[in-house]
Amino acid sequence: MPPAVSPIVKVDAIEELRSIFGDRIITSESACHAFGSDESFHGNYPPDAVFAPRSTEEVVNVVEICAQYRFPIIPYGAGTSLEGHICALHGGICLNMIEMNQVLQVNHDDLDVVVQPGVTRKQLNQFLKDTGLFFPIDPGADASIGGMTATRASGTNAVRYGTMRENVLSLTVVMADGRVIKTAKRSRKSAAGYDLTRLFVGSEGTLGVITEITLRVFGIPEKISSAVVPFSDLGNAVQAVITTIQLGIPVARIELLDDVMMQALNRYSNMDHPEEHTLFLEFHGSESHVEDQVETFRMISDEFGGGNFQWTKYTEERNRLWQARHDAAYAAKAMRPNAEIWATDVCVPISRLAECILDTKADIVKSNLQAPIVGHVGDGNFHLVLLVDHTDPEEVKRAEGLHERMVMRALEMEGTSTGEHGIGYGKLDFLVAEHGEAVSVMRSLKKALDPANLMNPGKIVRLWRFWRTGTNFSNESKSAGSRLTPEC
Amino acid sequence: MPPAVSPIVKVDAIEELRSIFGDRIITSESACHAFGSDESFHGNYPPDAVFAPRSTEEVVNVVEICAQYRFPIIPYGAGTSLEGHICALHGGICLNMIEMNQVLQVNHDDLDVVVQPGVTRKQLNQFLKDTGLFFPIDPGADASIGGMTATRASGTNAVRYGTMRENVLSLTVVMADGRVIKTAKRSRKSAAGYDLTRLFVGSEGTLGVITEITLRVFGIPEKISSAVVPFSDLGNAVQAVITTIQLGIPVARIELLDDVMMQALNRYSNMDHPEEHTLFLEFHGSESHVEDQVETFRMISDEFGGGNFQWTKYTEERNRLWQARHDAAYAAKAMRPNAEIWATDVCVPISRLAECILDTKADIVKSNLQAPIVGHVGDGNFHLVLLVDHTDPEEVKRAEGLHERMVMRALEMEGTSTGEHGIGYGKLDFLVAEHGEAVSVMRSLKKALDPANLMNPGKIVRLWRFWRTGTNFSNESKSAGSRLTPEC
Repeated sequence: MPPAVSPIVKVDAIEELRSIFGDRIITSESACHAFGSDESFHGNYPPDAVFAPRSTEEVVNVVEICAQYRFPIIPYGAGTSLEGHICALHGGICLNMIEMNQVLQVNHDDLDVVVQPGVTRKQLNQFLKDTGLFFPIDPGADASIGGMTATRASGTNAVRYGTMRENVLSLTVVMADGRVIKTAKRSRKSAAGYDLTRLFVGSEGTLGVITEITLRVFGIPEKISSAVVPFSDLGNAVQAVITTIQLGIPVARIELLDDVMMQALNRYSNMDHPEEHTLFLEFHGSESHVEDQVETFRMISDEFGGGNFQWTKYTEERNRLWQARHDAAYAAKAMRPNAEIWATDVCVPISRLAECILDTKADIVKSNLQAPIVGHVGDGNFHLVLLVDHTDPEEVKRAEGLHERMVMRALEMEGTSTGEHGIGYGKLDFLVAEHGEAVSVMRSLKKALDPANLMNPGKIVRLWRFWRTGTNFSNESKSAGSRLTPEC
Repeated sequence: MPPAVSPIVKVDAIEELRSIFGDRIITSESACHAFGSDESFHGNYPPDAVFAPRSTEEVVNVVEICAQYRFPIIPYGAGTSLEGHICALHGGICLNMIEMNQVLQVNHDDLDVVVQPGVTRKQLNQFLKDTGLFFPIDPGADASIGGMTATRASGTNAVRYGTMRENVLSLTVVMADGRVIKTAKRSRKSAAGYDLTRLFVGSEGTLGVITEITLRVFGIPEKISSAVVPFSDLGNAVQAVITTIQLGIPVARIELLDDVMMQALNRYSNMDHPEEHTLFLEFHGSESHVEDQVETFRMISDEFGGGNFQWTKYTEERNRLWQARHDAAYAAKAMRPNAEIWATDVCVPISRLAECILDTKADIVKSNLQAPIVGHVGDGNFHLVLLVDHTDPEEVKRAEGLHERMVMRALEMEGTSTGEHGIGYGKLDFLVAEHGEAVSVMRSLKKALDPANLMNPGKIVRLWRFWRTGTNFSNESKSAGSRLTPEC
């Protein structure tokens, strides 16, 4: 367990925060525990306090006090991250953004919206329902927009609409020293200076606290159709996807569920799909364009040996299909109720995807583990849903080996250690394996913007920092109360 | 004129560079002059030497020597930038990337290519011609991919295919201390750590030297059609564009040429278009989808009072049309042969575009200047092609006033000081007006990655740096030979 903030600093910091915010600074054990873990299997690291700010100004107040006491700050959205992003590894205060949940602007003609970070993606789409607009990024969970921004989320629609990287236009950020910046104006593009927006998208709370987000939205398509097609050969399924994308068919979703996942889904959702590797697709556009896309894809599917091609334009059937896709994790869990889910993802160039999945499947069998696979296959991104009995140390060890080999396999194939889950602290070592010396550049950026390492410390990059054991801050470098301890 | 590097440092640095590269280090006045200015009206600031490296390793050699002598480094692509990006404001060595002009990989299934920075966009498309792939970003000039990356270029196709921001997957960069990093793997997306790729895209050579670029490419569309339609009312033309985008019509190009530009074009290209505000469009897709798009757009155009709608699917006619569009700058110049072109751009949320253009047009008349307008109107981005007699100081002053008011108008409309030309040193003050305190964050990033300010100094952000007047570097901070001088 890493070192936490010293008891004296903690008491002083909380006392000063209480002098401003009173009982809104919550320190009960149960509350802190509730904010100490995300949806992953990573342990629970409770913060020392939890606070739900209501405005950028309140965040500034907190950050200024925390900077004074060197008390860590961990922003919290909906808690749906998967690599321990919100664990308070070193204690500190959790900023629960739930009360900053307003849609501030809908700029219809500009196809953008301005939201607070606590707005969830479903809430946003509910809000937009009658405007003819929608926000496409869909990571499955009803994540907060702040969290999705911080983790560079993507999901099923990314193949057509891009990820958070492409869809965030501007951010308001409270920096580690309490300054408030806006990273960009509201124009669709800009060549004015360093791309601060993209620097904060995916920064996992380690460079500042995001308090406002300007997002691209899209017109709701006139027509939406879905299709399902099974393949006995995984390589053929992926080749069909490659051809689809090369032909420029603007498919909105193209998901792969492997044979094991289809078994689980049939059982859980009471469906009777062939238990083969299966593509789930969605097409958006005008009536004729959608029919055109479906027909072209059907030809491609036939060419690559796809089985019975089923498609539907009816909303109800479509929803049933995608609900099943979104229930994949539950379906997997139902295969082995006493196991915990260890969800992980990698992303490779699509030309290597079939090979990467097949090698991983062989390794799953060899490791005597259960791990269905689902993939955002248009992006070369896939998830392993490892089912692990955490009470069995030997099985955990086998799972760790499988996981490590999968990530290293992806890196060898010019892929990344995570396509959309992020680094958190679960994948710190893999970041180094992936980026090598570039991690030292990341470390320089972190040090430049957060020299005291107060912003979600221990995530993305490891730093050395001064941990204080006393409140005598006036003469820090000489103080006997200062000591240098490794961060993580 | 800003201070240049001291004569002693210059001689020592060049001598050491010559000891490795011999006569390839060019210092002739004519060569240095040729690399001292871009295509803008900004002055000529020649470097002290010019060198054309042939590999990343050679760039490392140069950077290490320059770091030792604190000799500035200015990367040079095709010299087509427009804000003085490659002016050697403080002397130093120009790295002419012309010999690093190889396409290193074409990954057909992954729809990506790996190129050296000196490859130009036309060269790349020529290379790809027989592969069925193309690289869509088209800023008009035959810019180098390195320069386009460094300036976050976009152009006519950005409304559909995005800008360099969206289309660069990974970069190899030589940092200011000579380290070589790769910013990302080759996968389509990643959530692994800070987005270093986007940090270097648009960094204008101020954070490191780009020596390799992985780019997205696209399948050549089955069918391409073009259309032209005049509007007597500019607001209606823009409203037609807004409706087109809201309906999700994936228009590939949608350009606005104002009435003045249409006059110039008719005269220059011997065409007989109505001399009204005119939209030039291009549609990409399957045969039926393109027809579908053209028909839908024709209906929108009719609804908003568009005039005679002409379209063509014939390559020759299409090329003639787009050649005319690309000749806009020459056509403008021909209006007033003794004038120089001052090309500048801003970008606003599209809902404010008509207002911004109309206010600017009124200001042009009031300022008694000639300045046709062309715009990548789907992005809210437009260019003023100011025709200025630089021998007339009073006219230059009027042009400066017009320019400044246009940029400030865009900022007031939540737009940016430059949509695609960049900051260089021509728009330094506007960057501060646009970003406020965020510029200090940019400055922190620059200092973190290039503490000695050797990488294209004086561009994007102003820094203070030590300028050395002697070669006694062993005891720098105490040396009488060191003095602190403002950078710019």
